Amino acid sequence: MLNQDLVGLGKKRSTIREIFEYGNARAKEIGRENIFDFSIGNPNVPAPDAVRRTLLSLVENTDPVALHGYTSAQGAEPVRAKIAESLNRRFGTAYHAGSLYMTVGAAAAISICFKALTCSPEDEFIVFAPFFPEYSVFIEKGAGAKCVIVPPRIEDFQIDFDAFARCLSPRTQAVVVNSPSNPAGAAYSAETLTRLSALLQEKSAEYGHTIYLISDEPYREIVYDGIALPCPARFYPATLMCYSYSKSLSLPGERIGYVAVPDVPEFIDLYAAVCGAGRVLGYVNAPSLFQLAAAECAGETADLSVYAENRRLLYEGLTAMGYRCVKPDGAFYLFPQTLEPDDRAFCERAKKYELLLVPGADFGAPGHMRISYCVQTGQIRRALPLFQKLAEEYQ
Amino acid sequence: MLNQDLVGLGKKRSTIREIFEYGNARAKEIGRENIFDFSIGNPNVPAPDAVRRTLLSLVENTDPVALHGYTSAQGAEPVRAKIAESLNRRFGTAYHAGSLYMTVGAAAAISICFKALTCSPEDEFIVFAPFFPEYSVFIEKGAGAKCVIVPPRIEDFQIDFDAFARCLSPRTQAVVVNSPSNPAGAAYSAETLTRLSALLQEKSAEYGHTIYLISDEPYREIVYDGIALPCPARFYPATLMCYSYSKSLSLPGERIGYVAVPDVPEFIDLYAAVCGAGRVLGYVNAPSLFQLAAAECAGETADLSVYAENRRLLYEGLTAMGYRCVKPDGAFYLFPQTLEPDDRAFCERAKKYELLLVPGADFGAPGHMRISYCVQTGQIRRALPLFQKLAEEYQ
Repeated sequence: MLNQDLVGLGKKRSTIREIFEYGNARAKEIGRENIFDFSIGNPNVPAPDAVRRTLLSLVENTDPVALHGYTSAQGAEPVRAKIAESLNRRFGTAYHAGSLYMTVGAAAAISICFKALTCSPEDEFIVFAPFFPEYSVFIEKGAGAKCVIVPPRIEDFQIDFDAFARCLSPRTQAVVVNSPSNPAGAAYSAETLTRLSALLQEKSAEYGHTIYLISDEPYREIVYDGIALPCPARFYPATLMCYSYSKSLSLPGERIGYVAVPDVPEFIDLYAAVCGAGRVLGYVNAPSLFQLAAAECAGETADLSVYAENRRLLYEGLTAMGYRCVKPDGAFYLFPQTLEPDDRAFCERAKKYELLLVPGADFGAPGHMRISYCVQTGQIRRALPLFQKLAEEYQ
Repeated sequence: MLNQDLVGLGKKRSTIREIFEYGNARAKEIGRENIFDFSIGNPNVPAPDAVRRTLLSLVENTDPVALHGYTSAQGAEPVRAKIAESLNRRFGTAYHAGSLYMTVGAAAAISICFKALTCSPEDEFIVFAPFFPEYSVFIEKGAGAKCVIVPPRIEDFQIDFDAFARCLSPRTQAVVVNSPSNPAGAAYSAETLTRLSALLQEKSAEYGHTIYLISDEPYREIVYDGIALPCPARFYPATLMCYSYSKSLSLPGERIGYVAVPDVPEFIDLYAAVCGAGRVLGYVNAPSLFQLAAAECAGETADLSVYAENRRLLYEGLTAMGYRCVKPDGAFYLFPQTLEPDDRAFCERAKKYELLLVPGADFGAPGHMRISYCVQTGQIRRALPLFQKLAEEYQ
C-alpha cells in the first residue's frame, strides 16, 4: 500500500520539468541548437571563481575529519556568525549566529517553516499568484496544511490588497512572499511591504496570534536598473527569511541555504520549532563543505550581467512585437501575456517554432507564459524572429 | 501558533546529543584529555585519500555550471549507474540506474521511505529494539504514522520471532532492519534473515498487501572477524535498501546516500512514491558534487582498522572486568549490560569517572549502555582503569 498522492507526484513531474524533458528529447531529434528551451530556471552562468578557489583550499588544507564531519544540526557556529554579519552589513538587520539555521537549500528552508508552523490540517498558508508551484506541494503534501491563493494583480504583480484581505482568516499561520519573484520577476516596493506589514500586524492583533511572513529570497541579488530592493524583514518583524545560494552563487545542485529566525518575543520557541521541523524531516545538517564555502563567499555573486542583457533583449524585442509584459525588476523570468486567453493552447502552438514556454496557469495566472532567460544570449537572438512569427499567427 | 511537538523536539535534543554537549562543556573545565566521551557516533578516521583527490580533480577539471547544477531529482544518471554496478558486483543484486534514488544521507533515505509508505495515521512501522531512536521521530513526527517496537532479544540481539509475530498486523506497512546495528553492533545472520523473509512473505499474503523491508545499512562495510555480512535484499525481495556514505567514507557532514528500490511487480509506483516523497519533503536533489564523488569512490572505504582494534581492546577489557556484553559483529558500538538494572543511574554514576555513556533505555533496551568506540585508541586505553573502578563500586 503506497501513498497514492505521492505516487502521483512522483510520476507527474511539474509541467516545467515535463517541458524541459520534452526539450531534451526534441534536441536529440533535431539538434540542441534548433530548440529554444525557455522552460527551466537553471542558472547558466558559472559559480564565481572564489567558489572554486575556496573549495580547493578547504579540501587541500582542512583536516578531513573536521571538514566532512557532522556539524551541529543548525549548522557550524562560525558559518552562521559570518553569514549573520554579512546580512547585517547589507540589510541593517540584527541577526547573530543563533538566529540562523543552515538548510539543504531554499526548498528545505521553506518546507521546514511550513512544517514548523502547521499545528492542524486546517491551518492555512497564503501565497500570491503567480507563484512557484512547489509551494502548494510543500504546504499541502509536505506539511499537511492548506494553501490559499491570492489572485494576481496583473498590471504590476504587486499585491491586490482587497483580494488578500479576503484570504486572511484566523487559520492563517503565515504568508509567503518571493521578491523578486518566480515567475513574474516582480520586486515588492517599499509601499507594498509597508502596507503588507500594517495589515499583518492588524490581523495578528485581531486573531490573537502572530501571522508570520515567510520570505523566500533566492533571487534577491538578481535585480536590475540599479533598484534598491526592499528587505521584507525590515518591514515586518515576524519574518522568517529563507535563502539559497543557488542563484547568486550558481550552486543550485549543492543545496545550501538558511532560515534566519527573527528576534520576536517567542524567539526561543520559534527557533526550536525550526530545529524540530528540520529534525523530523530527516535533515541532519546542511552539507558541511558547502556551509563553509557559502560563508566564505557570502559577499560574492556569479557574473549576473548576462541576465541583464538577456532581459533587455527579450523585453524590448517582445514588446516591440506587441506582446504585453510587465517589465521585471529582478530574477531571470519574463511573464508576458499570451496572445490568446488559453495559455496552454498558446504554449502548445509555440512548440511549432520549437519555442518551449511554460503556461502561466501553472503559476496560478492563466493568460500568461513564463520565459526563463537564464540561457545563452545567442538563443534569445535566434528565438526573437520565431516569437515574431508566432505573433503574426494572431494578427 | 507553533507546532509544540516540534518545539519540544527542537529544544530537547536526543540524550546522545545532550551527553555530547555535556562532554564539551566538561572538557572546557578540566581539559579534553580528562574526558572519556563515548557518546556520539561521529567517525574519527579521515575520508580515504581518494575522496580528496576526486574532489580536487572534479573542482579543477569540470565545468562549474555542470558540476554544481541541478541534477534530476533522482540523481545524475551516470552516478546511479555506477553505484548500481558496484552494488551488483558486491552483492549479486540486479539494480540498474533506474532503481536508485540519491538522497541527502541515510536519514533522508529512510524518512522518504516512511513518508512514501504512509497512507493513514493508523499505519504502522516495526522496529527492533535496541534501535536508533530517530527512527521513531521520523515515523511519528515526520511521516505521521505509528512506530511499533519489538522487545530486544538480549542474548544475541537477533530477532525474537515470537515477539515480532505479535507486533505484525494488517496495518504493518514496513519493518526496519539495521544490520550491523546501532547501538548493539549486531549483524543479522542468514538464518535470521531467512526466517524474517519467510514470515514477511506469509504475512503479506495473509494481509493481502506487501509488507516492505526497509534496510538501513550505513554500517555494512564495518564488520569484524572476516564475517560475510548477509545482504537483506538478497533474502527478501521487497526490500528498500537505504544507504549512506557517512561511515564507510567518513563523510557524515556531507549528507550523501541513496535508496535502492527493488524490482517488485509494483516497481513503477513504488519508485514514483519514493520520488514523490522526496519532492514533498523539500529534497530537490542530493548534493551534486558529492553525488559524483561518492560514485567515483563507491568501492573505497576509509581505513576502518582502528575500529577493529578499539573493539578488541574494549570488549576484552570490559568482559575481563565482569561486564557482560554480546560481542558486536560490526559498526562501532559496544552495548554491554549495566551493572545495575537502572541504566540511567549507572550512566550518571559513570560520570564521576568522566566516562560518558548513553543509557540503553534511549534505544529501547534498558539495563544496557552504548559505548561508541569511534574514538582515539588512546582514549580507550586510558578509560579502561576507570571502567574497572566503576565496576568495583558494584562488587
